[in-house]
Amino acid sequence: MPEAAFVAALGAVFEHAPWVAQAAAARRPFDTVAALHAGLCAAVTSAPDALRHALLAGHPELAGRAARAGMIAADSIAEQARAGLDRLSDSEYARFEALNAAYRDRFGIPFILCIGRHGRASLLRAFEARLQSDPEREMRTAEAEVFRIAAIRLGRVVEEDGTLHTTGRISTHVLDTVLGRPAAGVAVELVEVVTDTETVCVARAVTNADGRTDVPLIGDRPVPIGVYEIRFALGDYHRRIGTNLPQPPFLDVVPLRFGVAEPEGHYHVPLAATPWSYQTYRGS
Amino acid sequence: MPEAAFVAALGAVFEHAPWVAQAAAARRPFDTVAALHAGLCAAVTSAPDALRHALLAGHPELAGRAARAGMIAADSIAEQARAGLDRLSDSEYARFEALNAAYRDRFGIPFILCIGRHGRASLLRAFEARLQSDPEREMRTAEAEVFRIAAIRLGRVVEEDGTLHTTGRISTHVLDTVLGRPAAGVAVELVEVVTDTETVCVARAVTNADGRTDVPLIGDRPVPIGVYEIRFALGDYHRRIGTNLPQPPFLDVVPLRFGVAEPEGHYHVPLAATPWSYQTYRGS
Amino acid sequence: MPEAAFVAALGAVFEHAPWVAQAAAARRPFDTVAALHAGLCAAVTSAPDALRHALLAGHPELAGRAARAGMIAADSIAEQARAGLDRLSDSEYARFEALNAAYRDRFGIPFILCIGRHGRASLLRAFEARLQSDPEREMRTAEAEVFRIAAIRLGRVVEEDGTLHTTGRISTHVLDTVLGRPAAGVAVELVEVVTDTETVCVARAVTNADGRTDVPLIGDRPVPIGVYEIRFALGDYHRRIGTNLPQPPFLDVVPLRFGVAEPEGHYHVPLAATPWSYQTYRGS
Amino acid sequence: MPEAAFVAALGAVFEHAPWVAQAAAARRPFDTVAALHAGLCAAVTSAPDALRHALLAGHPELAGRAARAGMIAADSIAEQARAGLDRLSDSEYARFEALNAAYRDRFGIPFILCIGRHGRASLLRAFEARLQSDPEREMRTAEAEVFRIAAIRLGRVVEEDGTLHTTGRISTHVLDTVLGRPAAGVAVELVEVVTDTETVCVARAVTNADGRTDVPLIGDRPVPIGVYEIRFALGDYHRRIGTNLPQPPFLDVVPLRFGVAEPEGHYHVPLAATPWSYQTYRGS
Repeated sequence: MPEAAFVAALGAVFEHAPWVAQAAAARRPFDTVAALHAGLCAAVTSAPDALRHALLAGHPELAGRAARAGMIAADSIAEQARAGLDRLSDSEYARFEALNAAYRDRFGIPFILCIGRHGRASLLRAFEARLQSDPEREMRTAEAEVFRIAAIRLGRVVEEDGTLHTTGRISTHVLDTVLGRPAAGVAVELVEVVTDTETVCVARAVTNADGRTDVPLIGDRPVPIGVYEIRFALGDYHRRIGTNLPQPPFLDVVPLRFGVAEPEGHYHVPLAATPWSYQTYRGS
Repeated sequence: MPEAAFVAALGAVFEHAPWVAQAAAARRPFDTVAALHAGLCAAVTSAPDALRHALLAGHPELAGRAARAGMIAADSIAEQARAGLDRLSDSEYARFEALNAAYRDRFGIPFILCIGRHGRASLLRAFEARLQSDPEREMRTAEAEVFRIAAIRLGRVVEEDGTLHTTGRISTHVLDTVLGRPAAGVAVELVEVVTDTETVCVARAVTNADGRTDVPLIGDRPVPIGVYEIRFALGDYHRRIGTNLPQPPFLDVVPLRFGVAEPEGHYHVPLAATPWSYQTYRGS
Repeated sequence: MPEAAFVAALGAVFEHAPWVAQAAAARRPFDTVAALHAGLCAAVTSAPDALRHALLAGHPELAGRAARAGMIAADSIAEQARAGLDRLSDSEYARFEALNAAYRDRFGIPFILCIGRHGRASLLRAFEARLQSDPEREMRTAEAEVFRIAAIRLGRVVEEDGTLHTTGRISTHVLDTVLGRPAAGVAVELVEVVTDTETVCVARAVTNADGRTDVPLIGDRPVPIGVYEIRFALGDYHRRIGTNLPQPPFLDVVPLRFGVAEPEGHYHVPLAATPWSYQTYRGS
Repeated sequence: MPEAAFVAALGAVFEHAPWVAQAAAARRPFDTVAALHAGLCAAVTSAPDALRHALLAGHPELAGRAARAGMIAADSIAEQARAGLDRLSDSEYARFEALNAAYRDRFGIPFILCIGRHGRASLLRAFEARLQSDPEREMRTAEAEVFRIAAIRLGRVVEEDGTLHTTGRISTHVLDTVLGRPAAGVAVELVEVVTDTETVCVARAVTNADGRTDVPLIGDRPVPIGVYEIRFALGDYHRRIGTNLPQPPFLDVVPLRFGVAEPEGHYHVPLAATPWSYQTYRGS
C-alpha cells in the first residue's frame, strides 16, 4: 500500500495526529494488525516528549463542551454516544465538567479513557481514582488508554484479522432440565445495573431452537466494565408449553446478576431451570 | 371455662360481633383450635341471613376513613398497618377510596379481605377481580375471608395448638460449595417486589454457623401472596474469607427472585454457591 | 455413473443381494444419499415376496457358526466384532446358538438386527422380545433392520452427504466452578455397563483447554442402546492444581451413569464440579 | 457409685486391664463421659512403662488365631465382625496373618487399630503404613488407638451424654425439582466400595414424605474411612409417579460416589434431580 493511502487509511486512528501513521509508514509492511498497532505505538513512544504531550493534549474531553458542540472526531462522537455521554442529565453533565476541570488543572491534559471498556458507573470510578494519581504515572496511563482506543479503531478499519483481541462477549443459553433439552422461545433481556435504582436495557433477544440467542447479547466490541443482569422470561416459557403453574409462579422473570471485570473476556452465563429450581455459572 | 370468660376471650375474633362467640359457647368444649374455629364458623353459617349480612357490613374498609380515624378494632389497625395501608400516598389512598366506593355500591358491604395473606400488589389485583364477581358468590367469598381473619386472630389467642395452619414460612440457607460447608456470616435481605420499580425490605439477617438464619425471614404468620427477592451479600462473604476476586466480582449481591402463591406454605429458598456459580430450588 | 460401476459400488450394501442395486440403478440419478437409500429400499419392497424372503434368509446369524467360520460378508464381520460377538464366552455363544435356533424354527429366517444400534444387553433383550412376535410382523421388522444396516453401510460408502442421520454422539465437558473456567487435563473414561458386574471400556480421553475432549467419546456411528458411565478423574485434577484435599477426597473418581435410548441422538453429558459438589444434565 | 460397681461397669473398656478402671476410680466423680475418658487415659499414661506395654501386648490381633478361636473379648468379637474380619477368604486371612507376624516381630506388640473407624481398604492401608513407623512413635500410636477404642466402648456404656463425639453420620435426602418438593418412596442403597470390583451393601432405605430416610444410613457409630456410593432408584420413582421415560431412561439408578475421611464427621449427601439432570453436594 502506498504511503499516502496508508496514512489516509490510518490517519484517524490517533485523534488529530496523522503524524503517527506517517512515522509508522516507514516500517511497512506489517504482517498482522497486532504488529501494525505495535508499530504505531512505537512511533508514539519514540517521538519527542513535546509531540507525545501534544497527542494527549489534542484529545477531546469526555462529555466536554467540544463534544456537545460536535467539534470532535467522528469516532469520538460515536464512542461517547455509545457510553450515553450524549444523554447526560444537566447534573451529570455538570459533574463531568467539574471533573474535567479538576483533571485539566492537575495534569494539563484532558482526561483520556477508552470509554468503550467502561460502563457509566465504572467510568466515574476510574475518573475519580485517576485524579489521585501522580503526573508522571498519569501521563503513561493516559497514553496507554490512547493506545487502547487506537487498537479498537484499528480493529474496525482492518476487518479480517483478529490478532488484536479488543472485543469481548456476553452470551447465554437456556436449558429446560424438566425435558432435558434446550428451551426455545425464551425472551431474554440484558440490562446494565448503573445504580441500585437505575438500570439501562442493553439488548433483547429470544432463544432459538438450540436455546441460544442468534447473536451474543454483547459481541464484536469490548464489554463495558460494570454490573449486569440477564432477565429470563421463564414463566412465559412454561405457560406457553402448558406447564401447570401457581399464580404467581415460583419462578417468573429470573434475574441473573453478574459483574464484568475484563472487557475482552467471554462471559457465558447460562440458565438451566425447572419451574422450581435453577442454576447458573460462568461457562465457556 | 365459664361462658362469660369464653365470650370475653373470643369476642374480638369476629369484629364487632360478640354474638358469634356467644352462639358457639353452647357447643363447648372444643378439643382443638381447629374444632373451636369450626364451631365459630358454624355459629355464623347457621345464623339468620340478616345477622350474617350484618357481620359483613360491620367490617371496616381497607384504608378507609374509619381506619384513618382510628375508629376500627385494634386487630384491624395492626393488620392494615402490617400491609402498609397506613402509609399510603395520597394517590394510593384515593385509589382505595374509589375501589371501596365502587365495591360498596355494587355489593352493599365493605370489601373484606384477609390482608395478612396478601402483598400490596396482590391485594389490589384481588380487589379488582372481586369487583367483577356476582353478589351471591361475593357474599360467600367475603364470609370465607372473615373466617380466615378469625382463624388468624384465634391462632394468636390460643398459643400452643398448631391445628389451624394459618401460618407459612420463608427460610433460606447458604452453602459454600468451594469448601463444602455452610457459609456463615452472609448478610441476607428479603424484599417484597411491589412493582418493577418499588421494593420494600421485609427482613434482614446474617447466616449463622449452620448457614441458616436464626429465625425464618417470615414465620408465625401467613406469607403475603406476592413476589420476593432474597439478596445475598456473597461478594462480602468471599472477601472476608480471603477469596481472590476480580473487581467488580462476577458474583457480588446475588438476588433470588421467587413468587409466593400459598400464604400457609413453607418456602425454603437456599443458595449453594461458589464465586462463579450458584443454584437454588424450592426446598423443604 | 455407469450402471456397472453403480452396482459394483453398492452391491455389498444389501448382503449377498446385488440385485437390489441393479433394480435401483434404473432410477438413477439420486440427489441425496437419503434418496438413494429410499430408492434401494423401494427396489426391495416392490420385489416379489420370494425374493424379499430370500434377502432375509441370506443374512448371517448373529454370532452364528458361519460368523465363527468367517464365512460372512466383510461388513458383517466388522459389525459383529464391534458388538463383541467375536469374543463371546462359550456359555454366551451357546446362548446365542439356542436363540438363533429357536428363532429360525419359528420364523424360517435368521435373526436380523442392526447390531450397531445395540449394546450387548439391549441386543439380547431385543432378541428375546422378537422371539415372541408373530411371523407377519416379524418379517416387516427384519426387513426394517436390513434397511437400517443398509443405511449405515451406505453412509460409509458415500462420505460427504449427511442426509441419512445414521450416527449419534456422546460428548462431555468439564467445568471447574471454583475457578469459573473449563477444567483442562481431566482424564475421562466411557464404559458400557453391560450387567451389574460387567463393564466394558468404550473410550478414554483427556479434556483440553476448553474442558472438552478433542473428539466425541462416541461419534460418526450410532450410539449403541444401553447404559453407560462416564468416569471423571476429578481428584487427580484437583491434586494437580494444588487443591488441599482430605484422604480419601470427598470426590475422587466421579461416575455419571446414564442410559441411551436413541442411537441417532446427541448425548452431551457435562460435569460442573468443585471438590465438594457437582451437577450434570443432558445438554446440547 | 461404689468403687466395685465402677470397676465392674468399666472394667471391659480397656481390654484385659481392669486395673485401669481401678486406678481411675480414685479420681471419681467425673462430670462428663469426656472427663471420665480423660481420667482413664491419664491412669494409663501415668502407669509404669511395663504396665503400659502390657496393656498393648494384651490386645488381640486383628483376624488373628485368637479371634478365630473366639478367645477374645466380646467387644472385640463384635468390632472385628462389623469390619468383616470374621468373613475373610483364606487368602485375605493369610495376608492378615503375615502382616500380624511382621508387625509383632518389629514392635513386639500386636497391631492395634480402632477398626470401627476404618473400612476394609483403609484398614489394610493403615496396617502397611504403620509397619514402616519407628518403635517409639508406634507405641504412642498404638496407645492412642487403645484410647479411641475405649472412648467408643465408653460411649456405649454411658448412653445419655454425647460429649465424647465418637460417632459420625451418613445421611441423604432426595428433592424432585420438577415438582419442587421432596421425592417420597425413593429406594436408596449405601454400599462401601472396597475395590474396583468389590462393593459391600451397608444399608438400604426408602425416602419418607420429607424425602429423607427415617434414620441416617450410618449413625450412632464412627463412619468407617473409605469410599461409598449411595444408589438412588430414581427411574423407579419417576415411573411410579407416571413420568414418561425413554427405555432405558436417561437416569435410572443414580450412583453418588464419595469418600469419607473423618469417621466422626457428618456426611449429608443429597440428590436434587429431574429425569434429565441432577446435582449433589456435601451438605449439613
